[in-house]
Amino acid sequence: MTREPKKISMKVVPRLSQYYRIIYDRDSKDMVSSNDLSVATGFTAAQVRKDLTYFGQFGYPGKGYNVGELKGSLKRILGLDRRWRVAIIGTGNLGMALLGYRGFREQGFEIVAAFDFDKRKTGRVINGVKVFDIGQLRRVLEKNGINMALLTIPRNSAQNTADELVKCGIKAILNFAPVNLKLPSGVKARNIDMSMELESLSFLSVQNGEQE
Amino acid sequence: MTREPKKISMKVVPRLSQYYRIIYDRDSKDMVSSNDLSVATGFTAAQVRKDLTYFGQFGYPGKGYNVGELKGSLKRILGLDRRWRVAIIGTGNLGMALLGYRGFREQGFEIVAAFDFDKRKTGRVINGVKVFDIGQLRRVLEKNGINMALLTIPRNSAQNTADELVKCGIKAILNFAPVNLKLPSGVKARNIDMSMELESLSFLSVQNGEQE
Repeated sequence: MTREPKKISMKVVPRLSQYYRIIYDRDSKDMVSSNDLSVATGFTAAQVRKDLTYFGQFGYPGKGYNVGELKGSLKRILGLDRRWRVAIIGTGNLGMALLGYRGFREQGFEIVAAFDFDKRKTGRVINGVKVFDIGQLRRVLEKNGINMALLTIPRNSAQNTADELVKCGIKAILNFAPVNLKLPSGVKARNIDMSMELESLSFLSVQNGEQE
Repeated sequence: MTREPKKISMKVVPRLSQYYRIIYDRDSKDMVSSNDLSVATGFTAAQVRKDLTYFGQFGYPGKGYNVGELKGSLKRILGLDRRWRVAIIGTGNLGMALLGYRGFREQGFEIVAAFDFDKRKTGRVINGVKVFDIGQLRRVLEKNGINMALLTIPRNSAQNTADELVKCGIKAILNFAPVNLKLPSGVKARNIDMSMELESLSFLSVQNGEQE
């Protein structure tokens, strides 16, 4: 049975990212088995096979998967076959850390502009990326064809700024502010909340019963 | 039916974090209804009620939950009733961003030391936290009763450093390096992988069919 991409559950996606990362550098003509992917990720081979059948039967029984085909499928599913042009909103330490991340570009995410509210921070060029005044948001987003934003500003200005981004046509936001953004249904967001991750870790450790 | 905490699924935990955050500042004598929590989080009231029954029946039909009781339960479940003493390993931009985060402490996570490999970075005191040479790891961890580590170092040194942390008795690691750490079963880790989050966002946007 071949399933349409839209049926893929969100929880499968981080695993697909991992498979993609593992085969990213390999020759397209090579083969990779579910066992290879299992060893590299720590997931069971059965899990790997199940994940990959989500987008059709393209493995070769006893031989595994053609790297080129698998790479193409994963790329398409993950939306990495299009160009993501990214703006970072907020150039505090976290924004700067993201500006310094290597690997974003090779995965298809090109950071093309940064913005800040603080006039002392604007006008600088960091890792080849210019920091603009937030007042220039619309102009710069449109001129540069930006279609994704990373929001690294304090909690109290996050919703207003997200609203501005939406008005400018942005439909994908990675939000680091610890708030639940209210966004129109066509706009997709992911939240990275450091405090919440710490609490999940704390929860795990307590359940584990090993920490005292 | 009252369930034991260990039966709580990991996917419930971020929601519990959100409930905790919402009632954190409220008076312990107040009442909060599942509807209040639903409005504040955007989850359905049914979802809220279901989540809260995970750790026993302590709501009052028609009145909701006593804030003090709910706060206490959430705190215990999330492991926030113990003291987490945290070290940040790596003081690049990301480590610095974490050092600058307010709110960690009030949630029970106290950053007490930072470490770096770069001698030019050690000896500094940032937001009241001293940066030590990584060579002093064991001594400083033990002296300060540190029981959690935030790993913000490059991919290629992450596993080795995690091994060191484990040898020093650390059992909870929040890992920002884009690698799957191999850890003994008693050690718990959470990964925050920025690239993977970008890919999940990309996936969502593609599935949505709104981005072109």
